[in-house]
Amino acid sequence: MAIVLGNNQYGKAQNHVVRVYRDTARHEIRDLTVSSALRGDFSAAHADGDQKDVLPTDTQKNTVFSFAKEKGVGAIEDYALTLADHFIAQTPVADGARIEVSETPWRRIEVDGQGHDHAFVQSGDGVRTTVVNVDGSGADRKANVVSGFTGVTVLKSTGSEFQGFLKDRYTTLAETDDRILATSLVARWRYESQAVQAGNVDWDKSYDAVKALLLQRFAEIHSKALQQTLYGMGESVLQQHAEIAEIRFSAPNKHHFLVDLSPFGVENPGEVFYAADRPYGLIEATVLRDDASEPGNAWLATPGFC
Amino acid sequence: MAIVLGNNQYGKAQNHVVRVYRDTARHEIRDLTVSSALRGDFSAAHADGDQKDVLPTDTQKNTVFSFAKEKGVGAIEDYALTLADHFIAQTPVADGARIEVSETPWRRIEVDGQGHDHAFVQSGDGVRTTVVNVDGSGADRKANVVSGFTGVTVLKSTGSEFQGFLKDRYTTLAETDDRILATSLVARWRYESQAVQAGNVDWDKSYDAVKALLLQRFAEIHSKALQQTLYGMGESVLQQHAEIAEIRFSAPNKHHFLVDLSPFGVENPGEVFYAADRPYGLIEATVLRDDASEPGNAWLATPGFC
Amino acid sequence: MAIVLGNNQYGKAQNHVVRVYRDTARHEIRDLTVSSALRGDFSAAHADGDQKDVLPTDTQKNTVFSFAKEKGVGAIEDYALTLADHFIAQTPVADGARIEVSETPWRRIEVDGQGHDHAFVQSGDGVRTTVVNVDGSGADRKANVVSGFTGVTVLKSTGSEFQGFLKDRYTTLAETDDRILATSLVARWRYESQAVQAGNVDWDKSYDAVKALLLQRFAEIHSKALQQTLYGMGESVLQQHAEIAEIRFSAPNKHHFLVDLSPFGVENPGEVFYAADRPYGLIEATVLRDDASEPGNAWLATPGFC
Amino acid sequence: MAIVLGNNQYGKAQNHVVRVYRDTARHEIRDLTVSSALRGDFSAAHADGDQKDVLPTDTQKNTVFSFAKEKGVGAIEDYALTLADHFIAQTPVADGARIEVSETPWRRIEVDGQGHDHAFVQSGDGVRTTVVNVDGSGADRKANVVSGFTGVTVLKSTGSEFQGFLKDRYTTLAETDDRILATSLVARWRYESQAVQAGNVDWDKSYDAVKALLLQRFAEIHSKALQQTLYGMGESVLQQHAEIAEIRFSAPNKHHFLVDLSPFGVENPGEVFYAADRPYGLIEATVLRDDASEPGNAWLATPGFC
Repeated sequence: MAIVLGNNQYGKAQNHVVRVYRDTARHEIRDLTVSSALRGDFSAAHADGDQKDVLPTDTQKNTVFSFAKEKGVGAIEDYALTLADHFIAQTPVADGARIEVSETPWRRIEVDGQGHDHAFVQSGDGVRTTVVNVDGSGADRKANVVSGFTGVTVLKSTGSEFQGFLKDRYTTLAETDDRILATSLVARWRYESQAVQAGNVDWDKSYDAVKALLLQRFAEIHSKALQQTLYGMGESVLQQHAEIAEIRFSAPNKHHFLVDLSPFGVENPGEVFYAADRPYGLIEATVLRDDASEPGNAWLATPGFC
Repeated sequence: MAIVLGNNQYGKAQNHVVRVYRDTARHEIRDLTVSSALRGDFSAAHADGDQKDVLPTDTQKNTVFSFAKEKGVGAIEDYALTLADHFIAQTPVADGARIEVSETPWRRIEVDGQGHDHAFVQSGDGVRTTVVNVDGSGADRKANVVSGFTGVTVLKSTGSEFQGFLKDRYTTLAETDDRILATSLVARWRYESQAVQAGNVDWDKSYDAVKALLLQRFAEIHSKALQQTLYGMGESVLQQHAEIAEIRFSAPNKHHFLVDLSPFGVENPGEVFYAADRPYGLIEATVLRDDASEPGNAWLATPGFC
Repeated sequence: MAIVLGNNQYGKAQNHVVRVYRDTARHEIRDLTVSSALRGDFSAAHADGDQKDVLPTDTQKNTVFSFAKEKGVGAIEDYALTLADHFIAQTPVADGARIEVSETPWRRIEVDGQGHDHAFVQSGDGVRTTVVNVDGSGADRKANVVSGFTGVTVLKSTGSEFQGFLKDRYTTLAETDDRILATSLVARWRYESQAVQAGNVDWDKSYDAVKALLLQRFAEIHSKALQQTLYGMGESVLQQHAEIAEIRFSAPNKHHFLVDLSPFGVENPGEVFYAADRPYGLIEATVLRDDASEPGNAWLATPGFC
Repeated sequence: MAIVLGNNQYGKAQNHVVRVYRDTARHEIRDLTVSSALRGDFSAAHADGDQKDVLPTDTQKNTVFSFAKEKGVGAIEDYALTLADHFIAQTPVADGARIEVSETPWRRIEVDGQGHDHAFVQSGDGVRTTVVNVDGSGADRKANVVSGFTGVTVLKSTGSEFQGFLKDRYTTLAETDDRILATSLVARWRYESQAVQAGNVDWDKSYDAVKALLLQRFAEIHSKALQQTLYGMGESVLQQHAEIAEIRFSAPNKHHFLVDLSPFGVENPGEVFYAADRPYGLIEATVLRDDASEPGNAWLATPGFC
């Protein structure tokens, strides 16, 4: 029996990069949090403490910042792919790189009905994310792009039921044909390898359309359970977006309990709720095409299903 | 020498109340976090453990939820004042009550260009708050209302300098005539006692106008320091809002450091910044009328200056 | 009517200083988070943007770090007092300074039953804090020291009741003679001005003794309510510590609800509890000597009562 | 092309269970946070909204609490395995269950040198965790147990270097033969399938020994990089614990930057550091036996490598 090094990765997490475009008086800003990680045969560093193969995380940080100027920041997916390829090229023993980018949205402050040139306010409209995993380089290069968002909190005040469920001796939950449905949604979708390889995905357009569609479908679908809502949302995305191979959801069921006001002689027909924190239901699901490309390392080290 | 009970208050913190208005198919929702506290001569409870004067925090919680139905939720200031008066009336030894309400904003989900009837998405546009302090009842009643917001993060990508400051042997900071200015603003303003007593403040209208004005002034003022920006913002509010006696700011100076890319042969003329978390500058200031009414207990137990 | 600047302070918050003492092979470490703030007539900075009176927060940060070497870090109270006096001396218009220091505890890692010379593990035993406020200098100098801790979570599994309380139509809580009592305690005590002025408080010894006494009394006192427990704890501190003028508590009542297992035919005689997060009771109280010195600015800008 | 349901799981997250053992006057308490999740062919629930196969998360919650009484809480691993088997048995379409338990440590409050019978204080000594995954039942049952801890923060004030690393044009980091090494360690180890199946692991003893050994090795190993330290720690665990198949680490490199005090004429020979929050290095590594059993679903949905 021998003891060996297994899966490993290392990098610099949470570089908070703010990029200002100031070529004209009307500035643009981009607010990114970037994490990089390299994987490969780093056994010398682990077993012997020999760092000759290790590109320091400090160097990765420097590169992340410098590329924001040198290469510019277009779609976060392109920025991440460029960084991943660069790190693999710079680090001979690295056979893969993982770049995660989150973008915090800002909008212009309104002054006299106009968006100001250089003053901005953060809008809390969820955070756009991408996780890019590149394996190898040259002819063997395989790139995976998983994009999505975190922290989009949605709620339906009706149009949601939960009944007909399995019961055992520990079941006390009442069936209901009208409840509040709320979740703080994390959605991540994997782009088809072919589309990524061909480089013909319009990342920004795809993101905007998918996000709007997910919200719309959440609103439209009459919910029999959060599972069915999520599945329906994912199905619509796959129907309308050929560039997407699969979509995964992680959705806490943020329980809103109807408060019993009857001890005070007060009726409460679905009007006053206690919004609980913990425990919460947690629904995680994948919706995919049956002919979707293989994910390979696409989901590596991303919270949720792997 | 005797040991005695000094200032004290007790209550139920962070009741998360969601109120749905469903009188028509077009629902409205209100998402409130409510904390109540009573103060007065509760020495029997403290010294002897005798609870006869103590309205339980559980009862306070019940009341908070029931009033959301019985009295309804209009402006959070009115809801808070109603609760404060009620608790003082119910609790003979209480000579004051403090009610804090925070409201999380939601907006309708867009479907085909229309806001949906009963599906909502949280907008992250800061949290509206009010802290209401009522002392006494009847002819002696004094009500204070401090309203404001937390978590409004703003940034200027230019129009901000910092120079001409005091220097000592520990000063290494370079003077600058162009830097990023960013803060996650907490603003709280106290309404004039007379206006509160007369009951003629339009809380929602006042809140919307003050918030918009603060953002506008942040954008417009050429900043020589965060202090001067805040003062100018506060001054405009007092000039335009006779109903407001004073305004207080707590503003972390969220430092954005220009990254030195020269080791890589890359210029960085105000384009790539590292956004730091800690340490941060913290600027706190009060702007008030010189004939403002006395605050009394208005600022009791509210973070920041008292 | 004129608009004027009211209370204000500014400084550098949350400088995370780690100080290593390495004079011998047996190192010592101190892990401090330090916030400084100056107050006074900074109206030129606010009204005109003139920074000539403003010692930059960056300079304050530099000083905090340099003093950790120049002056060393003994008791956090002494370190804070030294910084406060220094900042007042350096800044002509400052008439007061507030220094807050929190210390995270570490202990030596055990190797073969011995504490290691230079390897440490964080112990989560609450965080020791001090808030020092100095007004003026020379003969007019007045120094206030408020020390304490945050985040000490304690629980009694019996020896706690809650009954005989005031009831109204919203009261549904059952009386109980046996419940879990738990809180995440914040305690802050103010040292007598005379003792501070005389410089004869042994800060470390006082802190250790007060903390141990508070825990002991929490354990010993049969609780009729959290109020009575806190009062009893404070009373013991004042009885045994002549150097302390008053003590303040902020104590969330961390509710543990007995779970109803009867639907499953299971008895639950005080054995299985659901520990809730929100809402929680919040009890705040001051215990003081009736001849305590005036607090002046001692509690300025410290969360809780002021 | 068809759209299908892929991996999915659902359950109740973060049930906060406090279990009191009060058979004698000397109470014991256990403070657990429990998350359950079921996986399998829940396509009817997703595609059609038919809940007939779905054991509600509310029922899972009830079971978690009731089992704390019915089965008692011994080692968290046994408690989790019992729950997993139960849920699979109760839910015909479930082919797997994942139970995660975290235990917050408490110790007795000292009174007169003795631990009190029923008063406790939380010790912040990291949180013990287990993730149990069971697939199937009866002869086909496969159980995986991954135990470990989160939030153990350790620091070496010397005995750590970082040099000889790979350099490129973005490398500015200076080599060093003496730096602070600190991390907030997450360690998770997978028990050998055979040992789990045989039921002969002493979970508590194994946990205590592994944790102590990891701390000891962190202290003892002269570090050439965090990678080498982690590998050495893992190697020792595998050498001494035949019951363990592999161990995985997630270790943020909590940077401590030496502060340049030379502008103030102050030397700083490794004594005053600025402890930074972000960005941080993040080192993740697996150490395993080359004949380790297959992990199967052991690492499903656990943050880090899968």
